[in-house]
Amino acid sequence: MNSIDKLSEIFARFPGIGPRQAKRFVYFLLSRNGDYSGELVKAVQDLKKEIIQCSECMRYYAKNGYDSKLCSICADDTRDNSMLMIVPRDIDFEAVERSGSYKGYYFILGGVVPILEKEPEKRIRIKDLEFRIQEGKKKGLKEIILAMNANLDGENTAEFIKQKYHGSTLTFSTLGRGLSTGAELEYADPETLKNAFLHRTK
Amino acid sequence: MNSIDKLSEIFARFPGIGPRQAKRFVYFLLSRNGDYSGELVKAVQDLKKEIIQCSECMRYYAKNGYDSKLCSICADDTRDNSMLMIVPRDIDFEAVERSGSYKGYYFILGGVVPILEKEPEKRIRIKDLEFRIQEGKKKGLKEIILAMNANLDGENTAEFIKQKYHGSTLTFSTLGRGLSTGAELEYADPETLKNAFLHRTK
Amino acid sequence: MNSIDKLSEIFARFPGIGPRQAKRFVYFLLSRNGDYSGELVKAVQDLKKEIIQCSECMRYYAKNGYDSKLCSICADDTRDNSMLMIVPRDIDFEAVERSGSYKGYYFILGGVVPILEKEPEKRIRIKDLEFRIQEGKKKGLKEIILAMNANLDGENTAEFIKQKYHGSTLTFSTLGRGLSTGAELEYADPETLKNAFLHRTK
Amino acid sequence: MNSIDKLSEIFARFPGIGPRQAKRFVYFLLSRNGDYSGELVKAVQDLKKEIIQCSECMRYYAKNGYDSKLCSICADDTRDNSMLMIVPRDIDFEAVERSGSYKGYYFILGGVVPILEKEPEKRIRIKDLEFRIQEGKKKGLKEIILAMNANLDGENTAEFIKQKYHGSTLTFSTLGRGLSTGAELEYADPETLKNAFLHRTK
Repeated sequence: MNSIDKLSEIFARFPGIGPRQAKRFVYFLLSRNGDYSGELVKAVQDLKKEIIQCSECMRYYAKNGYDSKLCSICADDTRDNSMLMIVPRDIDFEAVERSGSYKGYYFILGGVVPILEKEPEKRIRIKDLEFRIQEGKKKGLKEIILAMNANLDGENTAEFIKQKYHGSTLTFSTLGRGLSTGAELEYADPETLKNAFLHRTK
Repeated sequence: MNSIDKLSEIFARFPGIGPRQAKRFVYFLLSRNGDYSGELVKAVQDLKKEIIQCSECMRYYAKNGYDSKLCSICADDTRDNSMLMIVPRDIDFEAVERSGSYKGYYFILGGVVPILEKEPEKRIRIKDLEFRIQEGKKKGLKEIILAMNANLDGENTAEFIKQKYHGSTLTFSTLGRGLSTGAELEYADPETLKNAFLHRTK
Repeated sequence: MNSIDKLSEIFARFPGIGPRQAKRFVYFLLSRNGDYSGELVKAVQDLKKEIIQCSECMRYYAKNGYDSKLCSICADDTRDNSMLMIVPRDIDFEAVERSGSYKGYYFILGGVVPILEKEPEKRIRIKDLEFRIQEGKKKGLKEIILAMNANLDGENTAEFIKQKYHGSTLTFSTLGRGLSTGAELEYADPETLKNAFLHRTK
Repeated sequence: MNSIDKLSEIFARFPGIGPRQAKRFVYFLLSRNGDYSGELVKAVQDLKKEIIQCSECMRYYAKNGYDSKLCSICADDTRDNSMLMIVPRDIDFEAVERSGSYKGYYFILGGVVPILEKEPEKRIRIKDLEFRIQEGKKKGLKEIILAMNANLDGENTAEFIKQKYHGSTLTFSTLGRGLSTGAELEYADPETLKNAFLHRTK
């Protein structure tokens, strides 16, 4: 296989990229001068060098010179110790943090548990979570917010974690369901309407 | 204008129909035998004859021979008298009723109040609502649920009605906001995430 | 079934309309005043009264008072007698005529012949076509243009007609294949590229 | 800027990729083990080492050990010397070659000339084309096929090249326009219908 095909194949494994777009990426790189490819190579190499995983929340963050095993959020002791929000992936953490509505800590689960999955522990960071919760409890952790996507896998993952901690003194909550911004009654599904009614705001 | 163009023009005023699809409708009618057009004509004429507006909730319903000024829901005295849900249109009422989650009464507002609208009373059935609320109070009405679409016009309409009844002893609630079924954190807007967090279920 | 459901069902048979949009049409009619429904009823009734089928090209046209069995195009003897374009439906005729590129006569086939269809004569106006071609030959008809959609059914229909007239002295042509306006080489299928190359313009 | 943001920014310059998908690419790389990033780095580096530009058609191809300044097509002397097809980009060449309909040589123009562009020579390889045409003429080149996308920029580019060679003994052709595979008469634009009629196949 020549290197056009080889690189196309690698790009085609990127999320959401098919073989045709992968090839466009390769020709795009070829048509740019050498500096651009060099820049890409350097950025990928730097990524592996500079980005480490936070030992508490497991998210990826840039070391940035300062010597810490904790990301900026886990290192920030002004946040609310009583709450830990579990999200599937780094990009979900980013969305929640950007919304500015939550001031507690996070834990990145690393994935979800699909229905009928026989080995959930291979899909998610269940041991790291165990450890994080033990440590959290020492500092006043009271509520675990299971912030999952509103689909079957998300619900199954939340259920899996809740059962794991059945009998615990912690409160487990899930994100509120209802009308998303822009939703219209006419097109809303019965489940969403039911939740919108049950969780109405007075 | 010939009758192909005339009928196209009428169909083109139907919600969501452009001139091209309107014309397809006309040719569709032409290519069907006479009975089909006759059936359409009869159904439209029957609609005007058989369908009347409920004097309480203002929705359209079929008389069906029985002599009543009330639709089947307003005539059903087993429903919950303490709640009245205000929806913009008949089709919104249908969506909520189909979800099976609500057992109170309804009022069809007949539209929404867009922002900066100078004559809101021309857009919505504000006098009929006034009357319905007065009557409702005699029978134990306590809560008005403002069930609007989750957009600016919906919010403005809810706000308009709330202000109209400022100081009233009634409780005014709005539908819960949060993640709709299928929503993903990554693509959710900040407002939706904020609501999903605030209205989390424990 | 009440008349809301009855009329919804009729609208749901319109091309491209599902049950939900059909219902919106009904509520749209209900929310308009009586004149609008009356207008619709009148336009449908007029359609059946005023629109007749041209006895030569079989397309629907408005009588418009003048007493003729021919539509304005078949009645126009300044058009080119040597060419007859066969199109599947009235709406295809409209598209071609609007393009202003063709000055011969038309014949509306009334449909297409799907592959493996056992009774093609039930799908298309094959006898009317036979008659139209006989008459055309007396007036100098030389070329039949089979103007079909560029898909399997269209190709099969063209093939069916060609075979029917196998051995005829008439020339049978099909519409040129190539790049449609806006087409990009990268996304064009091999067949289209082949035709675009073979029929290149010098 | 940390290396997550830096790499996101580089990916966001890829064709068709927005900032959000660019970030997903970065997290995808982070969540894969080190080998995957290494593979990507190696493939990009190999691309620059192994891929060279053909000195005749200007397309990118893999050296593959053998010592030639020509790609496999330009080196193949069984192809038709009388025809040269000019395409905007490598990926357009691939589409045409895959269609199997053309047996002449190619030239990759490297871009298009947008309307009102003041410095066309900065957009396309006009000098390399000049040289290629001179060489071609010595070997019997007779026809230049301007294989451009069927849009304004494509037409302008073809026009620009034709005018450049005004008075030349070469024939300049453009790809045939008409119905693309799957096109329907009803939705075809007037220009396409006109071309489909003019270039009908007898």
